[in-house]
Amino acid sequence: MTSTTHHETQIVSDPDVPLVRIVREFDAPVEKVFRAHTDPDLVVQWLGPRGMTMTIDRFDCRSGGSYRYIHGRDGEEFAFHGSFHEVRPNELIVQTFTFEGFPDQVALEKLVLEDIGGGRTRLTATSLVDSFADRDAFVASGMETGVVEGYERLDEVLGGI
Amino acid sequence: MTSTTHHETQIVSDPDVPLVRIVREFDAPVEKVFRAHTDPDLVVQWLGPRGMTMTIDRFDCRSGGSYRYIHGRDGEEFAFHGSFHEVRPNELIVQTFTFEGFPDQVALEKLVLEDIGGGRTRLTATSLVDSFADRDAFVASGMETGVVEGYERLDEVLGGI
Repeated sequence: MTSTTHHETQIVSDPDVPLVRIVREFDAPVEKVFRAHTDPDLVVQWLGPRGMTMTIDRFDCRSGGSYRYIHGRDGEEFAFHGSFHEVRPNELIVQTFTFEGFPDQVALEKLVLEDIGGGRTRLTATSLVDSFADRDAFVASGMETGVVEGYERLDEVLGGI
Repeated sequence: MTSTTHHETQIVSDPDVPLVRIVREFDAPVEKVFRAHTDPDLVVQWLGPRGMTMTIDRFDCRSGGSYRYIHGRDGEEFAFHGSFHEVRPNELIVQTFTFEGFPDQVALEKLVLEDIGGGRTRLTATSLVDSFADRDAFVASGMETGVVEGYERLDEVLGGI
């Protein structure tokens, strides 16, 4: 197994609007980071915390497409779905996101990729909801573990493609 | 032409989050109000201010579908597109919304229909963006005229179906 550098993941709750902002750098070019987010065969290898199995119901990652997937662990299942509002190659993915355990809650998510030179990429992911209470409950629910471990797994996927 | 009662349209900018909330009652049951929002042949008859022609590029109003339409007046064209995150018959439509003149701005919109008795419906429509400045610019852009006139036109459509 090759050694992989894991950069720090910044997770910040915006003080003014009910939004969480995640910033993470990757030692891979934007093209690869984008592909790892849009090709379902790659997405299943890294999205979510370690120890989860991910099953894709649908994953049509294009402007106007939609997705649904299930995370499973120890017999428990957690399903998520949403729509891809815009997919702009190597730059931007705007999508909606619902955890089916709270079917009336919807987040608007934006993923922005920037080429920061040297074959490296800065990813900025924001998640916007309509109340601070829901945003804070989401952050307190342990999303940090899933995000940090997911991006460590993504480092490993990027090292192999 | 039959006479139609037009109820007041309330448009309120939320003080805490960058969201606009529109509340409007209609003298028609939720089934008809829902159908007038989801059947493209009806939508083109009322959506937007008077004097605009509406042309639908696509309007696939189901969970996971998408839409695009163009409003035209005096040779000017204004295009809009988005995705339908969830369409729950006679209750709820959650969708994204982008005016293509500002392609990087996206709103998350929720439409809730409530049966308020006597064959009448209360519609609550919210539009959430990620900055107060963008929300306030949207409200200041004259959206009120489009919303108020659009719902007056919707009263007329509902009177005929």
